[in-house]
Amino acid sequence: MKDVMSRFTSHMEIALDEARAAASRGEVPVGAAVIAPDGQVVARAGNRTRELNDPTAHAEILALRAACAAAGSERLPGYDLYVTLEPCPMCAAALANARIARIYYGAADPKSGGIAQGPRIFAHPQCHHRPEVYDGINAAEAERLLKDFFQKKR
Amino acid sequence: MKDVMSRFTSHMEIALDEARAAASRGEVPVGAAVIAPDGQVVARAGNRTRELNDPTAHAEILALRAACAAAGSERLPGYDLYVTLEPCPMCAAALANARIARIYYGAADPKSGGIAQGPRIFAHPQCHHRPEVYDGINAAEAERLLKDFFQKKR
Repeated sequence: MKDVMSRFTSHMEIALDEARAAASRGEVPVGAAVIAPDGQVVARAGNRTRELNDPTAHAEILALRAACAAAGSERLPGYDLYVTLEPCPMCAAALANARIARIYYGAADPKSGGIAQGPRIFAHPQCHHRPEVYDGINAAEAERLLKDFFQKKR
Repeated sequence: MKDVMSRFTSHMEIALDEARAAASRGEVPVGAAVIAPDGQVVARAGNRTRELNDPTAHAEILALRAACAAAGSERLPGYDLYVTLEPCPMCAAALANARIARIYYGAADPKSGGIAQGPRIFAHPQCHHRPEVYDGINAAEAERLLKDFFQKKR
């Protein structure tokens, strides 16, 4: 069990590093990583919506697209995604479209989350695939990064 | 009123052309176009999920990203999007993120739609922007393209 927990934490540390890098670029600090079934980290990304002028360039979408490109497939069954913040409805639906097996996230997002609140993307009959969801992983650090970022913006 | 209707129809014809082009590439025939506040068609796209190995490469997302890149902004207030099929939850949420003013769509999508069914993306308090939605535009032709495509697949 200890080994499993340290694996979760080390994968989330990669996502947190991407969140910190996003903050340093002036982007909302959210980061993500995609893990292949063999445990390899196949993609990692932070938010780049401002830099790319792309409202879809959330960390999850960029990591997902990179992982799909690397796999040569638009579906990633058996793959896991780690992200520092609860995915928004767009990202949650994209992860379902891609058949991601498991989502591990850090902080909850009462304002814009799409899994545990709002449209609860995986809770509808029209959702063709429901990833397993694990929340609250390294949540305090993910929240601290977001709070620091928005405090400096004021 | 007749002028307004013919404008709707001609913009949807562009989206339908993109859907037909998608079918000829072996992609699910859905097409989209983005119209700037001055009436200019600034982006048009059809599905390319298979070609690009990208589960996010729906017609709406590709057209939205192209329009944002052309505008140099991650938000498109005052812009309209035409699409031949009801957007899925991912696309509906992306269009809200981008602050698109109006969505005109053709066929309803009881299986995978995200506006009038399923998670009803714009019906939640967490939705920060609600585009105006107009449905059923050239719906019969949009449906015919989809039916033909899936019939040939069998």
